[in-house]
Amino acid sequence: MMKIDVLTLFPEMFTGVFGSSILGKAAAKGIVELNAVNFRNYSTSKHGTVDDTPYGGGGGMVLKPDPIFAAVEDLVPDQAAKPRIILMCPQGETFTQKKAEELSQEQHLIFICGHYEGYDERIREHLVTDELSIGDYVLTGGELPAMTIVDSVVRLLPGVLGNEMSAVTDSFSTGLLEYPHYTRPAEFRGLKVPDVLLSGHHGNVEKWRREQSLLRTLQRRPDLLEHADLSEAERRWLVLQDKRSEASE
Amino acid sequence: MMKIDVLTLFPEMFTGVFGSSILGKAAAKGIVELNAVNFRNYSTSKHGTVDDTPYGGGGGMVLKPDPIFAAVEDLVPDQAAKPRIILMCPQGETFTQKKAEELSQEQHLIFICGHYEGYDERIREHLVTDELSIGDYVLTGGELPAMTIVDSVVRLLPGVLGNEMSAVTDSFSTGLLEYPHYTRPAEFRGLKVPDVLLSGHHGNVEKWRREQSLLRTLQRRPDLLEHADLSEAERRWLVLQDKRSEASE
Repeated sequence: MMKIDVLTLFPEMFTGVFGSSILGKAAAKGIVELNAVNFRNYSTSKHGTVDDTPYGGGGGMVLKPDPIFAAVEDLVPDQAAKPRIILMCPQGETFTQKKAEELSQEQHLIFICGHYEGYDERIREHLVTDELSIGDYVLTGGELPAMTIVDSVVRLLPGVLGNEMSAVTDSFSTGLLEYPHYTRPAEFRGLKVPDVLLSGHHGNVEKWRREQSLLRTLQRRPDLLEHADLSEAERRWLVLQDKRSEASE
Repeated sequence: MMKIDVLTLFPEMFTGVFGSSILGKAAAKGIVELNAVNFRNYSTSKHGTVDDTPYGGGGGMVLKPDPIFAAVEDLVPDQAAKPRIILMCPQGETFTQKKAEELSQEQHLIFICGHYEGYDERIREHLVTDELSIGDYVLTGGELPAMTIVDSVVRLLPGVLGNEMSAVTDSFSTGLLEYPHYTRPAEFRGLKVPDVLLSGHHGNVEKWRREQSLLRTLQRRPDLLEHADLSEAERRWLVLQDKRSEASE
């Protein structure tokens, strides 16, 4: 069983997310143990202080090293165990699907979430194994990034995804964006499903879907095409489509 | 007041996040109204069906157009109102801080979250105004991405951030990564705070912080340097650092 601990000052933010849907089911099945731990409980001060003003002056508060070190040590009683200790921060490496796959091989993940405070540099240099960011935007804390990474990692654990989901083609696993999907009704407010999908001709359906997938990737994420697994004929077809769309602009 | 509605099949996931910390406070102050709406309530079928198998065959399920259209229309009674209707999907434009700033100018945001199902293409083509992704990784649903975007947008609304936070230097607003922070104790398990920060010499502190910020950006995110606001002297200094680190490798 994988164990995931999240150190946070806002454990109540995690209740709904850790208890619902795939994460809730994975925990109920005993595939993963999910804990949100309030590191204020590890403060040695009377008032539960976990942050302080920065040395050298300036605004903002900085998370003190002692409560975070104490919390991690309490969560890792076995000195031989080597959990991944992941600091959520905007300066971290940008999280990707490859990183999700790497983390899904681990036994124990510990996430450290700051909440608009900075981290004392000694946490960064002497405690954590990874620093991760989920993208180039500013958030109020590391909690939503930690939940996001936990979701992407847990869904990769064996036994978590049922057939209803593993069957869905993932955009990032094929290297191309998905083709358009349609379901009933065949006509909704005058908007019709493409004839080919109603034709029952499997070969034509497959051809249409592949072309739509290629076209959408060309239009929205041409950067993905470079590493996608395409035939020579497909690459020539894409060049042709690209020229056509330029000519019509 | 900004109004934010999130269409989801898992409204319980939002309770902790919308009720805590900055989002909870912003709602309590009346700066934003946050609603998680279960679009299953808009299904016209007896069993509350919201998805169906895809036309043309294949695995997975597809969200039907009718409940989503009906939910959005119910949330926008004024025909003249032009809310942003944002579909969370991996094929969408990658969310950035610039997009957060753009969305923070709106009166009404509606997020549509699928949950491992695909979307009927008619939702994409005839209902939504934006398609957004928060990064190149696979998640089980659009809920965590929607929460992430809501957090980044709401913290930009006037009156939301107190002084304790707005004072914190944001990594993405200066164009450089942050310098290292330190707080008490000055020595923790033999790990010392750099002397310069204890010196009380403001000029030296500022110089050290700027250099650390430049160095960290050079080491971790050199792509950010291109658009950062640097002096000619700083650019020359960075070239020198870069050569030194290459020489020592």
